[in-house]
Amino acid sequence: MSNGNGVLDDVIGWQDGHITAIDQTALPHRLDVLHITTVDQLVDAIVRLVVRGAPLLGVAGALGVALAVRQAEREGWDSARLDAEIKRIADARPTAVNLRREVLAIAAVLPDGAEAVEAAALEVRDTAIDVSRRLSERGADLLIEECGAGPLKVHTHCNTGALACLGWGTALGVIRALRDRGALAHVIADETRPLLQGSRLTAWELGQLGIEHYLVADGAGPFVISQRLSDAVVVGADRVAANGDVANKIGTYSLALAARRAGVPFVVSAPESTIDESTASGADIPLELRADEEVTSFQGVLAAPEGTRALNYAFDVTPADLVTAIVTENRVIRP
Amino acid sequence: MSNGNGVLDDVIGWQDGHITAIDQTALPHRLDVLHITTVDQLVDAIVRLVVRGAPLLGVAGALGVALAVRQAEREGWDSARLDAEIKRIADARPTAVNLRREVLAIAAVLPDGAEAVEAAALEVRDTAIDVSRRLSERGADLLIEECGAGPLKVHTHCNTGALACLGWGTALGVIRALRDRGALAHVIADETRPLLQGSRLTAWELGQLGIEHYLVADGAGPFVISQRLSDAVVVGADRVAANGDVANKIGTYSLALAARRAGVPFVVSAPESTIDESTASGADIPLELRADEEVTSFQGVLAAPEGTRALNYAFDVTPADLVTAIVTENRVIRP
Repeated sequence: MSNGNGVLDDVIGWQDGHITAIDQTALPHRLDVLHITTVDQLVDAIVRLVVRGAPLLGVAGALGVALAVRQAEREGWDSARLDAEIKRIADARPTAVNLRREVLAIAAVLPDGAEAVEAAALEVRDTAIDVSRRLSERGADLLIEECGAGPLKVHTHCNTGALACLGWGTALGVIRALRDRGALAHVIADETRPLLQGSRLTAWELGQLGIEHYLVADGAGPFVISQRLSDAVVVGADRVAANGDVANKIGTYSLALAARRAGVPFVVSAPESTIDESTASGADIPLELRADEEVTSFQGVLAAPEGTRALNYAFDVTPADLVTAIVTENRVIRP
Repeated sequence: MSNGNGVLDDVIGWQDGHITAIDQTALPHRLDVLHITTVDQLVDAIVRLVVRGAPLLGVAGALGVALAVRQAEREGWDSARLDAEIKRIADARPTAVNLRREVLAIAAVLPDGAEAVEAAALEVRDTAIDVSRRLSERGADLLIEECGAGPLKVHTHCNTGALACLGWGTALGVIRALRDRGALAHVIADETRPLLQGSRLTAWELGQLGIEHYLVADGAGPFVISQRLSDAVVVGADRVAANGDVANKIGTYSLALAARRAGVPFVVSAPESTIDESTASGADIPLELRADEEVTSFQGVLAAPEGTRALNYAFDVTPADLVTAIVTENRVIRP
């Protein structure tokens, strides 16, 4: 299923029995497509954020099961080994519910054989593209309802476009739908430290789409909102708990606080697959704590004195009461 | 007036008719002392943040007037030229009130001759050291009153120690006083993008002082506070308006929002000279907008696609209602 996105269609694919993926750690300076042929390589790619973004992790997990089946055939694994390898994929990152969910869904198809597994995994990919389009349009409807037809200055965080979830994306998909309706003035994008997904990926993707945008340091986001330089905040999610608490990239919570004080809508755009009814509240969501070096350095340049320690939470939790609405492909939830 | 601070005593000095200053852009990897012999060099040092921090800018401004007088003697400037050069120093950065205030104070001594100017400028330096010690002790009193004797986990932003204001500093001075009383567990320091004063300067200074500390990305600060991993927030100020609104390094506002929601004290530690009764409220404080490249790159490493634009506010304003207390060398103000 093509998407008319140019290079963005190469985000993740399945070719001759293996996974292809844009190396998101190399953007924006290089556009490298990696060929991932083993579970080891896939787990490494997920851990290093070569492949990232909650919906894309779901697709990567689904294709990962198909990849594990191929490797099992080549290397003569027994079913216990295959199960263990599939579990490694599911556990590669803890916060986004989509990864584990899609791995388990495709693993359930294993008894039907390798071809059925591949077909099911590719269907996850096609569904993700379709879902992103539907939730983008629904999100644009909601923002225009909340803020008027603008043109709106929309604030976002991290990267939530085609690189994060194929198709149009989630929050960036909403922005794209607003642009297509003439309702977008420009985008304000947080740089999103420590890994700079905003600077490296969102700015690049908005550039590809010809959408006017301005970067801000993460600490500047809340102040920019307080000055009403943003009309609305739209972000994605890695997991939504049953009570509406939202886990998303670290820095999201501060935008929600600022939006509430400024009276600006704070909208979460995420597929239904991100909602985890089995997690009661944000306090029950496992939050990944990553390596100190991501914070103490900047793209490989050490900023702090050698040996400085950090608290590197990759995600934070925004309590439901600060969320204006959660938009999925099917509905608008007002916590 | 020495200070028992080791290398930190070299932050700024006056030697053979010129200014010496640690190059704060080279820290933490190199400890370079610059010799500043002309107004051009001083203005450049202030603009590039070789010398920074509101109280230290006041001292630099005072010594700058003495420097201008020396240069006038050497180069035979008339008084109009001298006035113009002094004005350039006062205008080098707009937000911190201390710079302009101390320049004007020392310029008023000009009729008394070069020696009187130098003596007055050096007195500004000695006073800054004395003030920092007094406000540090008063701030520690206040925090223990607010939070108990701990030991406390104290959250701070940017750099507010000897590098920012000589002596003990402002917010970092409070932290040092808490440590000396056995009331400090550890410090959580925001990295403070875009120029990473937290990573480069605060982590280095806390290391010099042997104080345990952890860096967090700026976007993580509010979440860390929400999880009660911080018992109190202590920051400095670049200007306090008559109504108690506080201009400080970009990112401060988001900590104040988070502290309020978590029920954690948000304390501003600043000398009386930072309070500007002639500025009615935060809306009247000029906020410096700096170059896009500070956000799109770090130390020459470009993160965003070439040509990406940014909104690079160097400061934000925290409204008085979010401030628990402002501590000066003389008093505790509760806005």
